[in-house]
Amino acid sequence: MEIRPQLDDQSGTPIYRQLYESIRSSIRDGSLATGDRLPPTRELAGSLGLNRTTVSAAYELLEQEGLIKGHVGRGSFVAGGTISFATSRPLDELFPIDEFRATAREVLADPNLTNILQLGSPHGYAPLRDYLGGESVLVTSGCQQALDLIQRVLAPAGSSVLVEDPTYPGLKNIFERAGVRLLPRGEAQAPLAVVTPNFQNPTGHTMSLRERQDLLRTAQDREMTIVEIDIYSALRYRGDALPSLAELDPEANVIQVGSFSKIAFPGLRIGWVKARREVIARLAEAKQMVDLHSDQLSQAILVKFAESGKLETHRRRVVENGRLQLTAVLESLEREMPTGTRFTRPDGGMNLWVTLPEPMDAAALLPEAQRAGVNYLPSRFFEIARRQPGSFRLSFGGLTPERIAQGVALLGKVFRAEIPAAQPGLAMAMV
Amino acid sequence: MEIRPQLDDQSGTPIYRQLYESIRSSIRDGSLATGDRLPPTRELAGSLGLNRTTVSAAYELLEQEGLIKGHVGRGSFVAGGTISFATSRPLDELFPIDEFRATAREVLADPNLTNILQLGSPHGYAPLRDYLGGESVLVTSGCQQALDLIQRVLAPAGSSVLVEDPTYPGLKNIFERAGVRLLPRGEAQAPLAVVTPNFQNPTGHTMSLRERQDLLRTAQDREMTIVEIDIYSALRYRGDALPSLAELDPEANVIQVGSFSKIAFPGLRIGWVKARREVIARLAEAKQMVDLHSDQLSQAILVKFAESGKLETHRRRVVENGRLQLTAVLESLEREMPTGTRFTRPDGGMNLWVTLPEPMDAAALLPEAQRAGVNYLPSRFFEIARRQPGSFRLSFGGLTPERIAQGVALLGKVFRAEIPAAQPGLAMAMV
Repeated sequence: MEIRPQLDDQSGTPIYRQLYESIRSSIRDGSLATGDRLPPTRELAGSLGLNRTTVSAAYELLEQEGLIKGHVGRGSFVAGGTISFATSRPLDELFPIDEFRATAREVLADPNLTNILQLGSPHGYAPLRDYLGGESVLVTSGCQQALDLIQRVLAPAGSSVLVEDPTYPGLKNIFERAGVRLLPRGEAQAPLAVVTPNFQNPTGHTMSLRERQDLLRTAQDREMTIVEIDIYSALRYRGDALPSLAELDPEANVIQVGSFSKIAFPGLRIGWVKARREVIARLAEAKQMVDLHSDQLSQAILVKFAESGKLETHRRRVVENGRLQLTAVLESLEREMPTGTRFTRPDGGMNLWVTLPEPMDAAALLPEAQRAGVNYLPSRFFEIARRQPGSFRLSFGGLTPERIAQGVALLGKVFRAEIPAAQPGLAMAMV
Repeated sequence: MEIRPQLDDQSGTPIYRQLYESIRSSIRDGSLATGDRLPPTRELAGSLGLNRTTVSAAYELLEQEGLIKGHVGRGSFVAGGTISFATSRPLDELFPIDEFRATAREVLADPNLTNILQLGSPHGYAPLRDYLGGESVLVTSGCQQALDLIQRVLAPAGSSVLVEDPTYPGLKNIFERAGVRLLPRGEAQAPLAVVTPNFQNPTGHTMSLRERQDLLRTAQDREMTIVEIDIYSALRYRGDALPSLAELDPEANVIQVGSFSKIAFPGLRIGWVKARREVIARLAEAKQMVDLHSDQLSQAILVKFAESGKLETHRRRVVENGRLQLTAVLESLEREMPTGTRFTRPDGGMNLWVTLPEPMDAAALLPEAQRAGVNYLPSRFFEIARRQPGSFRLSFGGLTPERIAQGVALLGKVFRAEIPAAQPGLAMAMV
């Protein structure tokens, strides 16, 4: 297949961007179909008289959007159809782009803009910090950096930390690379525990009030510090909200980690930590060492977005839609998975945990699922002590209910094909 | 003195911001003068019927702007007059704010905005990465994060790294905290060296062509990797540019660190690393662990700002002004410092190194300088092996030539007062 874009040297738009837009249109209008191979960058550069890096940049943009997919040694292919359950992120089709634009324009018009663009404080942009809780707050570059700073300050190499098993890969990687020993909560003791009480990643599990109280009591008895990852709690689709650990016991050693990124705009890297002032001071010192401070333009936009009420309006929309996403994913799992499959039934968030019947291996089946146009993360990315080869995380936050149903149907087909013996049982279960 | 702001509940502007603006006006119009004490937050909150955190937020904003200064246990004072030579940063009065606004508005109007606001790649936003050099580039959250990632990947705890002595505190802190042994370059061997060939921070020193070639030869002989901090080279005010280490030997193990922040907008935390692809791959893995990726809105704005030529136009203006800043700082040091003072004479950048005559101690004199309204960073922040109690860094990048001259005059007065014996000598030298 040939790519013959109209490229205009005189246009203000860089050539790679023009090339990107041209290929994107071809994918959208169907003249490039799923599975079509794009010409190698070198070849296309030659035929269009362009520099190879120009073509690479266009391909990279397409890949970043999920429109094409590169395979080492085989080239790049149109991937328009892949339904990815692999990333815990919000649905960008819901992003309130017009409201974001309006808020960003207000910030640009702010006479204080020069200060926003000058070097800032490691603690964060003061108006945002104040909005979040003042001196007990440190603004971070997303929840991920909050975990990095907490590791640096509170969990030196050689120390032990209690975590949920399975746990969030970003937590596992950062602590294990630093030489910290991660232990499954409930089976060991350690001076620090990291938990996600609401809609845990990857299982979607929510701790009951009793579990929260028990954990706080244990923490008090053992002088344990608790890191409470609280990034999903605003996304409850059913049932009643439970108080956070920090709310249940304001005197406990709780370090709360939050973020805007699960509601909207994860491309703006803004999260935060709430803790006692002396903990914040130590984290801020580490923050200054790792990157001086977080981006101030995004902080200024996000605080205005939140203060104006636009964030809350958007959150309600996300929750309404999340209810539909959750229904879609639960109903289609019920309908499509092979008999004997188990899965968690979260009340919010964007992740759940599927366990296929033995002896099925979710990692081994992944290439087949990808060929069918679906992606997910198998258990090994999340495991601490217990191996769960039949399990995988299904992240439904980034997909519409329709795409969720399509994707689960494709997955079900792949999995059922693996165990023909189970098919009749499934058929019966589905009657 | 009383603070009686007009606060409006119904206004869209938060109360703390109204309070901040009101106090700021009072400082600007002189009704609050340098040295005036602000009421304690609790007291002002009481008298205005506000929450104490509201008042704290206003004070924090004022402090962030350098308009007031808090002293533990003594309260907050109007600091309008302090001339700070303590931070290596660009002059914000030169920031091309209108051009920035125009570029940011273009990005906001981009149909691709949704993708900019969605989760991105740890390597960086593709158009910026392409602009900077494609696959050999990793976008980081400023130069500081580049150093953190390099430490994590290439300088494990217990290893040795060669650096300049004195060196940049952000480098010293991040490597020493990680348990890396820093050694002065030239006196030892190590697998990694970190250098700033142009306008080094803090000395302003530039390596000659011969020094660069010698270093590259040593690196080759000893299989040493060189980290080349290249954040000031675009700010040459006199003399001819020299090729960078990376340019001199494209085959050498050079990892180049760059940033936009010394030219403009350090509040947007965007820097980069250029290195061999296999090094970039390892750094990108670390980048994903520490904060997933850098802020994409700022990346999108900065690449458009650069591609449009606005960055280069602004850089020329900064260089023209830098020439005036450099002249001002050198001439006033010559004129104002006590006899026997030595200082470096850089050809660019924003820092130079002053050494007072013995037995003067720059750290011991700092409180006196601060009382006189001037700030600087004494030698101990920069020292590796050699103690230089008489020395301090003078950062002139963030001040107008007029403020530089005023500040150096104030410093000279403080220092000369310390050595009455030197006064006549000085007076004679000044004839």
